[in-house]
Amino acid sequence: MSGGAKSTALPDVDHDLVFVEEFDALSIELKVVPGTDDAFDDVILMTSGKAKYPAKTHARKVAKELGVKDGLIYLPGLPTQIYEDSDMGPAFRQRRYFYYIAGADFENCAVTYDLATDNLVLWVSYIDPRQVLWYGTSPGPKECLAKTDLDEVRYTKDLDAFLRKRLDLDAADVVRVDASIGSSFCRDKTSRSSSSSSKTTLYVLHADQIPDILKDEPAAARSLEVDAFSLLPAMDHARVVKTPYEIDLIRKANDVSSSAHTAVLRQLKGMTNERDIEAAFLDHCLALHGAKHQAYPVIAGSGSNAGVLHYFGNDEPLVGRQLVCLDAGAEWDLYASDVTRTFPISGSFTGEAAAIYKAVQRMQNEVFARFKPGAPFAYLHLHAAYVAAQELLHIGILKGGSATEILAKGTISAFFPHGLGHHVGLEVHDVLSSDLMSRPPTDADAKKSKVFVNNTRNVRSQLGGSKRQPVTPDMYATLMNEAAAVSNGDVSAFFYQRDRRRLLEPGMIVTVEPGIYFCRPYIESFFLSDPTHAQYIDTDVLETYYGVGGVRIEDCLLVTEDGHDNLTTAPKGDDALRLINGK
Amino acid sequence: MSGGAKSTALPDVDHDLVFVEEFDALSIELKVVPGTDDAFDDVILMTSGKAKYPAKTHARKVAKELGVKDGLIYLPGLPTQIYEDSDMGPAFRQRRYFYYIAGADFENCAVTYDLATDNLVLWVSYIDPRQVLWYGTSPGPKECLAKTDLDEVRYTKDLDAFLRKRLDLDAADVVRVDASIGSSFCRDKTSRSSSSSSKTTLYVLHADQIPDILKDEPAAARSLEVDAFSLLPAMDHARVVKTPYEIDLIRKANDVSSSAHTAVLRQLKGMTNERDIEAAFLDHCLALHGAKHQAYPVIAGSGSNAGVLHYFGNDEPLVGRQLVCLDAGAEWDLYASDVTRTFPISGSFTGEAAAIYKAVQRMQNEVFARFKPGAPFAYLHLHAAYVAAQELLHIGILKGGSATEILAKGTISAFFPHGLGHHVGLEVHDVLSSDLMSRPPTDADAKKSKVFVNNTRNVRSQLGGSKRQPVTPDMYATLMNEAAAVSNGDVSAFFYQRDRRRLLEPGMIVTVEPGIYFCRPYIESFFLSDPTHAQYIDTDVLETYYGVGGVRIEDCLLVTEDGHDNLTTAPKGDDALRLINGK
Repeated sequence: MSGGAKSTALPDVDHDLVFVEEFDALSIELKVVPGTDDAFDDVILMTSGKAKYPAKTHARKVAKELGVKDGLIYLPGLPTQIYEDSDMGPAFRQRRYFYYIAGADFENCAVTYDLATDNLVLWVSYIDPRQVLWYGTSPGPKECLAKTDLDEVRYTKDLDAFLRKRLDLDAADVVRVDASIGSSFCRDKTSRSSSSSSKTTLYVLHADQIPDILKDEPAAARSLEVDAFSLLPAMDHARVVKTPYEIDLIRKANDVSSSAHTAVLRQLKGMTNERDIEAAFLDHCLALHGAKHQAYPVIAGSGSNAGVLHYFGNDEPLVGRQLVCLDAGAEWDLYASDVTRTFPISGSFTGEAAAIYKAVQRMQNEVFARFKPGAPFAYLHLHAAYVAAQELLHIGILKGGSATEILAKGTISAFFPHGLGHHVGLEVHDVLSSDLMSRPPTDADAKKSKVFVNNTRNVRSQLGGSKRQPVTPDMYATLMNEAAAVSNGDVSAFFYQRDRRRLLEPGMIVTVEPGIYFCRPYIESFFLSDPTHAQYIDTDVLETYYGVGGVRIEDCLLVTEDGHDNLTTAPKGDDALRLINGK
Repeated sequence: MSGGAKSTALPDVDHDLVFVEEFDALSIELKVVPGTDDAFDDVILMTSGKAKYPAKTHARKVAKELGVKDGLIYLPGLPTQIYEDSDMGPAFRQRRYFYYIAGADFENCAVTYDLATDNLVLWVSYIDPRQVLWYGTSPGPKECLAKTDLDEVRYTKDLDAFLRKRLDLDAADVVRVDASIGSSFCRDKTSRSSSSSSKTTLYVLHADQIPDILKDEPAAARSLEVDAFSLLPAMDHARVVKTPYEIDLIRKANDVSSSAHTAVLRQLKGMTNERDIEAAFLDHCLALHGAKHQAYPVIAGSGSNAGVLHYFGNDEPLVGRQLVCLDAGAEWDLYASDVTRTFPISGSFTGEAAAIYKAVQRMQNEVFARFKPGAPFAYLHLHAAYVAAQELLHIGILKGGSATEILAKGTISAFFPHGLGHHVGLEVHDVLSSDLMSRPPTDADAKKSKVFVNNTRNVRSQLGGSKRQPVTPDMYATLMNEAAAVSNGDVSAFFYQRDRRRLLEPGMIVTVEPGIYFCRPYIESFFLSDPTHAQYIDTDVLETYYGVGGVRIEDCLLVTEDGHDNLTTAPKGDDALRLINGK
């Protein structure tokens, strides 16, 4: 099950989905859980942190997804990084795909996994004792074997010889290939079937991650084939369903974050600037818990900054503002948490802020009630948006149509403009997050998404749930049409091939982070200027809500066999108010 | 004065340097200050932060160093960065060469400086109002002009048209050049004199930083010449002597750091782990001063970790250890500070720690007494090493020879193994730091230095003062021979061409950071195993000092017209003890 070119029949789904024009709730009841073929029992149960990181378990999951019995997986860890024109480098951040099957969080390593012999080897640098003075030491074989369930740890100086032998590079019939590693060298899976069965396949994540020995000596034995296409989707499908050990780490990261959110609430009355909030959060994570890294930069936005989804300034005074939106999550042993709380600076909500907070809390609670194996995540999003539309109609910001009508037109994206959530794992926006909200992209999507995409090199999907990507009015229209088709019995409308991971499965950890925002430039330029949407918005009422800025509430939910387990325990609502007010 | 291929006569130096076999101090008195041709009076005096960042002043300094009257300087700022296989990126860190003449600390900018018309233009992205919701906004033209003394701020969408016109790219006689920008396209300075005078020269920092328009359309007009060699040395020579505005920023960074060091001392008795120290330092910088970035990762090494120069673990308990070496410096508006203090965890030194602390403090004080314009920095280093040898002989760790003999053999590098200091500016180890300690490299150096160099891409010099590089026994021998030659009147021995910035000049800011360390693997593998050095080391006495770990004391000194100004006010010695003990 590689997710590559191979076509796989999707299981039938026994569904019970109610969709009517004037619904009060989208009811989604899928009786059989797709993807249960991925349930992976061969995991090492962790007992309170004493077990080893299950790199071998992860390697076996990857092998199962690759669906092959022979070949060698090779992944290089991150080498030492230096800024251009500087002798300093960024904080070390290990490559996540590497870590998943290597469990080593330091520089200049590599990992090999022999698919035929089930042999997992971590390759580490030998540290000259003389270097200790300058750089300290990094873990040696003994420490690595104690921490991770590797078969062997060896020194990188012996890696070339190992590869030369394992890949049979010294065979007599060596042929020259082009030094630039291109499609002729890295074949994709579909073309492999035509090749001789005697060939060894080397699986790499990207063509530029082939071993140095193949770069330095642009010669490959006839017995070697490099596959730079199959490993990434196989690893994605392995990573998206977490092992118990990973779940424990993500739970721990959430515990640290929840504790730090609590600390901020307790200290809030003594704070005068957004940066006090950031500093207190970081200090608590580091000093009390030893959590050195955050899973993402702290967002501490007060007033209108609460309505900027990726606000990183964190340097404005709190005086005269209603709310703070604090989106902050610590990392624990490379695993992320993602937690957002919104609370009033004064210790009590204004009437407007209370109404919006209550609306967002209802959005989240109604999703919680439906969050279980088999639920299509896009429909949970749609349900949250429906609740938002109901609430905003009740408040009076929306007018002139039913919640369903406003949803179908997409006007709700003026206030709830991002996806409901994403996977959490080694990345805060973990692999296959875009699949959660995926559907066949249209030309219009491609055009629109360009507006929001900076010149980033590696964002693999521009649609869907990763990094709080926009959900546009057009996307609502499509989702609604699809939901209608499904309710009429046409399940195929949302089961096309790339959707394998669209439904919640046990072991997934996904955020539920509804929000309602009042970002004036966005609302005015996209919606109030467009009669399609302007007709549904009461600008007089809206004007009184700009001061609320925005409200987002975000928890990390583990999908369990029969529902979910909320890993986030940070206080919200009245509990938060009590902490702020020292009660 | 480009520092490139052009040969420049160095000024005569009226020196008075005493060097005898049994000296008590290296006396260096240079009566005329070389480099005064660089004194740059056309600077904007800053009055308590209200003046603008002097990007234009900096551009003019660069132009003066380039020594040309025409042409266009083009520098791109840092584009948005994303980790591989992730949607997250590292913390934004602006390109320092760009910032020096642009004063803009946000993504996706460029700067052009027209050498003929003295016109400095910052190019910034236009932020679509709809993007504000996702990314917030970045400074527009008005904010940029208020902060920095630019001539104009324009949008990057117009940059191609500007370049097309200014570089005359639409001239009828366009010729094709190779798409790969190599030596045929980027000519160095020496070959330029042969080219036609009608050509416009485009100055870039590196060949890969040419404007996109030249990358996308691999055609250059006959009227265009790209110089990717002259700008970097010209900017280095401009940057190494700081303008008053820059001095104020570095002073402010030092004030923040000194304040945070003080806060750590006050709280030390309540701390139990190295990470408490790191957390308190960071919290104080951020919450009290709003300093969001550190100039480098905090080093909080206790016990033997104090003897690891670039220790970043910061996660070990303090119990049972003598000293903490805290090397931590905040950044202020992109300018660095670099401050180290070493102090006893208990509030009082052991006898051994007191002896080493006193020795290091004497090393620093004796350098301070000689720290003034005209002083060759390498000789200040040699003097500090001489003091260290005297002190370690007195303590009894060294034996069997005079301080001078031990210096000439280089055995002192077992305990004082790094350079005395480096420049501080936009980088913590600022440009031309390696020149401070430079001398003609020998084959032996090249071989030895490889031991210490990881696979870093951009470290320009592997010798000398940058990033606490090793000073090996061989280097001491060379320095001693050179010093002897100088004392015999042969000034040319240390004035070879690349040494232009070897002597201290007014406006330079340089650290003075002597240290004495007891790093067992380093001392044993390099020195105790070698009879040349082992004869001078008393291993019985040494054994009693390993518990000290290491002592380093580091301040940032501004070279003034008649001496220096110590920018670092963090408490040391008895003042530090009083703070730890709450007195």
